[in-house]
Amino acid sequence: MFDFTFHNPVKIRFGRGKERNIGLYMREFDAKRTLLIYGSDRIKKDGLFDAVAASLKENGIEFIELGGVVSNPVLSKVYEGIELARKFNADSVLSVGGGSCLDSAKAIAAGAPYEGDVWDFFTGKDPSRALKIFDVITLAATGSEMNSGAVVTNEATKQKFSIHGNVLYPLVSVVNPQLQASVSREYLAYSAADVIAHSIEGYFTASVQPGIINLYIEANIKTVMKTTEILLAAPDNYDARAEFAWAATMALNGLTYVGTHGYSYPNHMLEHAMSAVVNCAHGAGLAVIMPAWMKWYKSRNLGAFERFAREIFGVSSADEGIEAFKTWLSKIGAPVSLKAVGIEGETLDEVVNLAYDYAANWRKDKLYTKENIKAIFELTK
Amino acid sequence: MFDFTFHNPVKIRFGRGKERNIGLYMREFDAKRTLLIYGSDRIKKDGLFDAVAASLKENGIEFIELGGVVSNPVLSKVYEGIELARKFNADSVLSVGGGSCLDSAKAIAAGAPYEGDVWDFFTGKDPSRALKIFDVITLAATGSEMNSGAVVTNEATKQKFSIHGNVLYPLVSVVNPQLQASVSREYLAYSAADVIAHSIEGYFTASVQPGIINLYIEANIKTVMKTTEILLAAPDNYDARAEFAWAATMALNGLTYVGTHGYSYPNHMLEHAMSAVVNCAHGAGLAVIMPAWMKWYKSRNLGAFERFAREIFGVSSADEGIEAFKTWLSKIGAPVSLKAVGIEGETLDEVVNLAYDYAANWRKDKLYTKENIKAIFELTK
Repeated sequence: MFDFTFHNPVKIRFGRGKERNIGLYMREFDAKRTLLIYGSDRIKKDGLFDAVAASLKENGIEFIELGGVVSNPVLSKVYEGIELARKFNADSVLSVGGGSCLDSAKAIAAGAPYEGDVWDFFTGKDPSRALKIFDVITLAATGSEMNSGAVVTNEATKQKFSIHGNVLYPLVSVVNPQLQASVSREYLAYSAADVIAHSIEGYFTASVQPGIINLYIEANIKTVMKTTEILLAAPDNYDARAEFAWAATMALNGLTYVGTHGYSYPNHMLEHAMSAVVNCAHGAGLAVIMPAWMKWYKSRNLGAFERFAREIFGVSSADEGIEAFKTWLSKIGAPVSLKAVGIEGETLDEVVNLAYDYAANWRKDKLYTKENIKAIFELTK
Repeated sequence: MFDFTFHNPVKIRFGRGKERNIGLYMREFDAKRTLLIYGSDRIKKDGLFDAVAASLKENGIEFIELGGVVSNPVLSKVYEGIELARKFNADSVLSVGGGSCLDSAKAIAAGAPYEGDVWDFFTGKDPSRALKIFDVITLAATGSEMNSGAVVTNEATKQKFSIHGNVLYPLVSVVNPQLQASVSREYLAYSAADVIAHSIEGYFTASVQPGIINLYIEANIKTVMKTTEILLAAPDNYDARAEFAWAATMALNGLTYVGTHGYSYPNHMLEHAMSAVVNCAHGAGLAVIMPAWMKWYKSRNLGAFERFAREIFGVSSADEGIEAFKTWLSKIGAPVSLKAVGIEGETLDEVVNLAYDYAANWRKDKLYTKENIKAIFELTK
């Protein structure tokens, strides 16, 4: 077990109707002026915006709005938010939406008090200050509600990069599974793939991996698989929705990485190139790339793949486990071919080149040569 | 899944030699004057005291000492500490020892700024302020290093009660598995029983219990069992020691109780009466009482007991699972009879009466009538 520091100060408010108290939760942390960030106008039609606005008003918190955040959120929107936050003299950001919305909010929170370009934080610099971050998370997938990271795409350079820092933990995250019940079947499947991806990156690639961490990871994967199947048949099953949400939060809040060492995030690296080029949903891209990467990587850590096969699917060989996983992804309605996410011919070349650029220039990961990346994409077939 | 708030702000510094930076960690939280609390003089002989003192000095933190905390810590020592802390004008407490030491430190931290009697907090009142709490935990068992509770015995009344409150989370807990390697074989077994007890109370008694939580609990139990066996054969196995320590921390930091509802702590209630009367080690008492309680309780939640049997021991019936657990406790050297912890004849009557007093007057738990408590103790035979 490798030495570690664990410190996750996020206050999770989990359960039915908790968003109606968001103003109270924010007042506990002395928020007075906030930038309310959201995606589509749907939250204005379904009453969520009104519920949040009423709670802010009731607690004396002034706010301005920034709508229109898209999935695979973009840097231009972050710049827009930074300008708004500064003009309004906001002390905080409040994201009401999914992971893309919250990630944009985190970037805005880091950028507003910073004199330079917020993109600096995505390319090596650590943020030392940020506005206070709050969120109501309406899609369980990224785990951003309980971690200190965020992913944003620079449209100009097609770089889909991440920002990290202790100042980027939300102070309060509201997780109300009821708000997540309206997710489409497709996005539920993508979300499941995303949570499983967060789970397996360390599980398969770490050079030091404690047994207790493997057990937690398997607990998260088993929970996501079981509850996804329940929710596809019965979308209104609250308990399944709640356990899915909590597994998503637990999969990337740091607890499945304590004591772990020498891991990397290859599936995310490859998928970020995919969605940067074709703008597919992150979880959709992950569903396509994971089984291919697993086939390519398995001999490097065979024991972990055999364990995965046994513990998750009750089969004995690594190959059978990977095949069972791909079958399961297909069964829940996730895409399992490049074509299904719009990657073919020249687009694939562009994805491969971009992924190689990420690997070589940013991650300095020598394992992922252009040839190896091509070989992995070849295995999606 | 029941609604919940989760907020655990403890900063865990885990790994080799971390205690040598304790002064630095405390300075990050602006500690300047601390009451250093410990148990026996052993830490003065093995270099731990000197290492901690050097780090405090290096970081400009003044301190005074309070040694002599005993296991099943007592209220009189807490009073002594409160007086010392006040005289010294301490802003913090630093526990260097096991759970008893840290629990005493927490009680002192709550009592020092309080005008009334600190025992008020053990009998219904919530502490609203406390000195800053820091610790170097030298025995993995109680989980106190990552929670906001503490247990102390009032010698005058034989009440072994607990204190709880958000102000009682340590700011920093140092967990260095190397410091825990000198624990005796007996105390290792007691500690294993304690961690398992923290795990099973909710698992067996909750009226609402999410599936994901059961998986985490089982992960903790499996880890403790596996690593205990490794450590009995090879006490210097660092990784096993580390995983044991982390399982102990995870078993009572709140994560195995989120979304859970309607649970109680009967094994702890019964054991607290045992150790209050005969002063046996808490884990020893738990090892004796758990299998008996399980036999008595099993028909009330048969599914959970069958699951325990299957998942932990690979057997199919509740009875076989309980028997296998008792056999395992015996195998690792934990006591499994009342006689082994010095409870016989009149002493047993005293324990039963005290447990009944706890149940009826403090916990208001009507299930634990005097007859039922007698029946449970009868099943230890």
